[in-house]
Amino acid sequence: MPKAYVEDFGWTAVPRDRSNVPSKTTAKTVPVQLSFDEIWPTTGLVQRAQEYVKEVFPQETYNHSLRVYCYGHAMVSLHFQPWIAAAKEKFFETWALTCLFHDLATTPEHRGETHLSFEFHGGLMALERLQSFGAPRPQAESVAEAIIRHQDPGETGTISRMGQLIQMATEFDNMGNQPHLVHEDVIKQVVAQHPRLKWSSCFAKTIDAEVAEKPWCHTTALEGFRQAVAGNKLMEPYD
Amino acid sequence: MPKAYVEDFGWTAVPRDRSNVPSKTTAKTVPVQLSFDEIWPTTGLVQRAQEYVKEVFPQETYNHSLRVYCYGHAMVSLHFQPWIAAAKEKFFETWALTCLFHDLATTPEHRGETHLSFEFHGGLMALERLQSFGAPRPQAESVAEAIIRHQDPGETGTISRMGQLIQMATEFDNMGNQPHLVHEDVIKQVVAQHPRLKWSSCFAKTIDAEVAEKPWCHTTALEGFRQAVAGNKLMEPYD
Repeated sequence: MPKAYVEDFGWTAVPRDRSNVPSKTTAKTVPVQLSFDEIWPTTGLVQRAQEYVKEVFPQETYNHSLRVYCYGHAMVSLHFQPWIAAAKEKFFETWALTCLFHDLATTPEHRGETHLSFEFHGGLMALERLQSFGAPRPQAESVAEAIIRHQDPGETGTISRMGQLIQMATEFDNMGNQPHLVHEDVIKQVVAQHPRLKWSSCFAKTIDAEVAEKPWCHTTALEGFRQAVAGNKLMEPYD
Repeated sequence: MPKAYVEDFGWTAVPRDRSNVPSKTTAKTVPVQLSFDEIWPTTGLVQRAQEYVKEVFPQETYNHSLRVYCYGHAMVSLHFQPWIAAAKEKFFETWALTCLFHDLATTPEHRGETHLSFEFHGGLMALERLQSFGAPRPQAESVAEAIIRHQDPGETGTISRMGQLIQMATEFDNMGNQPHLVHEDVIKQVVAQHPRLKWSSCFAKTIDAEVAEKPWCHTTALEGFRQAVAGNKLMEPYD
C-alpha cells in the first residue's frame, strides 16, 4: 500500500481500545475559536458531496454531520497533530466526506431500499458515489471503511485513524462520550453554527426505526445505545 | 421487509451470543451420511457462482469453502430445522453462495487491489457479482451482510441466521470451535470429499498477509485468531 495514500486518507492503524487517546488527566483541552467556514474544505469534491447529501438529508441529520466534522476537527487539532503533519488538506477533505456520508443510509428512503445494516449500506453508497464525484479509490475506500466500522467500538485490535475519529466524534455528539476531549466553549460555538434541533430524541427515533425494520441489524450490537442517545446529558442544554 | 425474503434468504435475527445454539449437554449430535453431491444446490445461480470462484481460488481455499458448506448444512439439518421449514432450497442456495464468496477477498489479487478489510471487500464483491448472476437483491444482500460480519462474533445484539451460520461453520473448520455441533464421523466424510491440504498453516499465512498489508484491518479484532487457526487440534488429524 503506497505510504502516501495511507497517511493522506487516514488509513494509519490505531488501537481500537483508544489507548492512543489522551485521558481525562493527560488531555490538554483548551477552548479554541471555531469558525466553520474557516475549517470546512472548499475542494470541488467536498462541494459535490455536500450538495448531494444536502438534497436528501433532513435538517437535523445534516446539522449533526457538520457538528461531527467540527468536533473531529477540534479533536485532531488539539490531540492528534501527527495525523495532519504531512497532509492536512487531504486528511480533512477525507474527514469531511466521512462526516457527510456516515449517516446517509439512515434516511427513511435509504433505510427502506435495503435489508443491509445501515452502516454497510452507507459505506457502499459512499464508495460508489465518491468515486463518481472524482475521489481516488483509496480515499473513497477510507471513507467506506470508516463508515462500515463507525458503530464498532471495542477493546481488541486496530482500526484506521479515520474510523477511530468518526467513532469518537459521533459518540461525542450522540451520547456526550469522552467529554474531556472538547472544551465546553467549543461545543457552544458549534451548536450555535449547526443547531441540534432536538437531535437526541430525533436520533433515538432513527435507531428505533432501524432496529424495528431490521431486527438483525448491527446497531443492536451497541448495548444501551438508544438510552444513551436519548439521555445525552452533555448536550441537553443545547438540544 | 417482505416476510418471504426474510425467511428464504436467512435474514431472521438470532442472538449474536449464540444462546439459541445447543450446548454440549443439550446438543443431539449424531453421525449422518453426508454426500456432497446430494446436498449441493444445482441451480443456475449456484453453478455460475461456483464456476466464477473456482477460476480464482487456490485449491485450498476452494476446498475450505465447500467444507464450510457441508458443516453448515449438517448444523442446520441437526440443530436448526425451523430455519429450513418453509424454504429449504432457497436457504441452502443462499448458504452455498455465502460459502463460495466468503473468502473471495483473501486471494493475493483481491487483497492487493484494495485497502478495505477483506470481509468488507468480499461483501461488496458478492453483492455486485451475485446480482449480475441473477440473484434477487435481498438474497445478494443477505450474502453480503453475512460476509461482512463473518468475523464479528460477540456477546451483544443480534445477527442474521446466515451471519451466525457462516461464523459457526468457518470457526469450526478454521479453529475447531463448538466441536459438539458436528459428529466426528461427519468430519471424516467431509475431509475425504474436500481435503484440507494443510489448511491450518495455509490460512494462518493468509491472516498474516492481510494484517501485514493492512495493519488497520478488521481481522485484528479477533484476539488470538492466528494462533487458534495454526493450532487447530480438532482438525489436525486431517490436515
